[in-house]
Amino acid sequence: MIRIGILGYGNIGKGVEYAIMQNKDMALEAVFTRRSPESVQTLGAKVYHVDEIKNFAGKLDVLMLCGGSATDLPEQAPQYAAMFNTIDSFDTHAKIPEYFKVVDAAAKAGGKVSIISVGWDPGLFSLQRLYAEAVLPEGENYTFWGKGVSQGHSDAVRRVEGVLDARQYTIPKEDAVAAARSGKNPQLTTRDKHLRECFVVAEEGADLAKIEKTIKEMPNYFADYDTIVHFITAEEMKKEHSEMPHGGFVIRSGKTAGDKQQVIEYSLKLESNPQFTANVLAAYARAAYRLAEKGESGAMSVFDIPPMMLSPKTKEELLSTML
Amino acid sequence: MIRIGILGYGNIGKGVEYAIMQNKDMALEAVFTRRSPESVQTLGAKVYHVDEIKNFAGKLDVLMLCGGSATDLPEQAPQYAAMFNTIDSFDTHAKIPEYFKVVDAAAKAGGKVSIISVGWDPGLFSLQRLYAEAVLPEGENYTFWGKGVSQGHSDAVRRVEGVLDARQYTIPKEDAVAAARSGKNPQLTTRDKHLRECFVVAEEGADLAKIEKTIKEMPNYFADYDTIVHFITAEEMKKEHSEMPHGGFVIRSGKTAGDKQQVIEYSLKLESNPQFTANVLAAYARAAYRLAEKGESGAMSVFDIPPMMLSPKTKEELLSTML
Repeated sequence: MIRIGILGYGNIGKGVEYAIMQNKDMALEAVFTRRSPESVQTLGAKVYHVDEIKNFAGKLDVLMLCGGSATDLPEQAPQYAAMFNTIDSFDTHAKIPEYFKVVDAAAKAGGKVSIISVGWDPGLFSLQRLYAEAVLPEGENYTFWGKGVSQGHSDAVRRVEGVLDARQYTIPKEDAVAAARSGKNPQLTTRDKHLRECFVVAEEGADLAKIEKTIKEMPNYFADYDTIVHFITAEEMKKEHSEMPHGGFVIRSGKTAGDKQQVIEYSLKLESNPQFTANVLAAYARAAYRLAEKGESGAMSVFDIPPMMLSPKTKEELLSTML
Repeated sequence: MIRIGILGYGNIGKGVEYAIMQNKDMALEAVFTRRSPESVQTLGAKVYHVDEIKNFAGKLDVLMLCGGSATDLPEQAPQYAAMFNTIDSFDTHAKIPEYFKVVDAAAKAGGKVSIISVGWDPGLFSLQRLYAEAVLPEGENYTFWGKGVSQGHSDAVRRVEGVLDARQYTIPKEDAVAAARSGKNPQLTTRDKHLRECFVVAEEGADLAKIEKTIKEMPNYFADYDTIVHFITAEEMKKEHSEMPHGGFVIRSGKTAGDKQQVIEYSLKLESNPQFTANVLAAYARAAYRLAEKGESGAMSVFDIPPMMLSPKTKEELLSTML
């Protein structure tokens, strides 16, 4: 059995607890939290305060870092990578190279394996971009996200004055997806590719026109997009927008000799984004464990991992049933 | 530069010559043929009789075995795997485990790397089946092929008495694809999944009704399918059916906690099947070369190859632009 620990019990941490139940070769040994352990209700896993994590050195095969990319992971990953094999879903794309270096140094110092930026983007989508470009060197990659809830954009709307709650859906524009699929290699702007739809619960008496304008003009988050704002009640929010669906598309359209069009498309339709992400983390935990057993160490990404390492099946089973 | 040789100059061999032109780190050193070298017209590569191949030991980094799975590869792969790093597209699924063993022994004896069964199925589709099952352990995989020309089925029709030429298209049934996508994990029979459409040029005066009946009742190839037969002229065949498009879908529908549906779909739409297959072979040639440089040896499949090995980009480039 691969002995797993979870650090951080939010949506992803809870998803990992579920994921481990689907993987018969894994056992969840402990959940670690910065909160008071009694306040954390798991599905059955024992909960410890994070200060006790050092007592688990040698007792966990993989520690799943389930915190956020903004502040948790940059602090936790270098700290724990020397002590445990780790998996995380660090998703601040621009900071990945720097993050990789810091985690790599810690993991190598401790002789451990850390697989960073695991999930679906970064993660499975990254793999598709790489495979598709490698087999079609002359072409274009297109990534579309949605329809789904963006946590970062929802948070940004919640910070607007007069907003009590908000949910932001990222929606790929059908025309743009069709253009990417067409094989004509179109140039698509940010505005061409995605629409942003916001559902907002406002304070009583708030200036709705002003809230809408503030959202639509918000730099980085909304200014470069067509944005739709709906005002709804707290009851409607709870009833209609409590699920976390997501998904998206990676499309590569390329050419081979004689102008032959070759189109590769990968898509995800997820009813639960955090549960799916957690399932990807679990598969990579298996790989981290196996690579560490082979004596490897250091930071890695999904690009480094031989696909076979993710499967509980033997090489013989895979060759005879799946190749 | 990665020095490549091609053995066998049919559709795939020619596709590999094109593919190498798209990969700036590869150079085509030689094409080997069993025919008279003067009779083979390449796009520029030098052509040698296969008997001269032994003179190229040490002068090629990878030999691309571009023969057929029925008789060429089972003979050639064990013969050349001890002398060169090789790539092949062996696609007789049922015989892969046995083929793997024989090639593995030869490659290990020679200290070379042989990546077998490369292409899109087996190949990229196999990878998708593995990744999807690893991240969604509770679910079903569905593979659909087409719309596209099946060489094996076309050949089978050509062997029917009274048939001069034939082209068989494998067509996925839309209802079945939709059912697989629905997330309801339907059980689909062979007949449910694909339709077979044949275009046949018959001899003058042939018994068309008898040809049609013979095709439709042919065991293994057609008896388990709904099959449509059209009789056309040789001119129509040349004009309408000389291209080799193909493609297909790998769909996995799975569940996570609370019965949440998660659907992964991968699809290819190929205007030229052999050119695309050849491009996949070229990317894996890069991996074979790199693995051999690292001192590895033996037979491998796409399941063994770290994705990064396929890309001409550096690790730093991949982390900063593609992860």
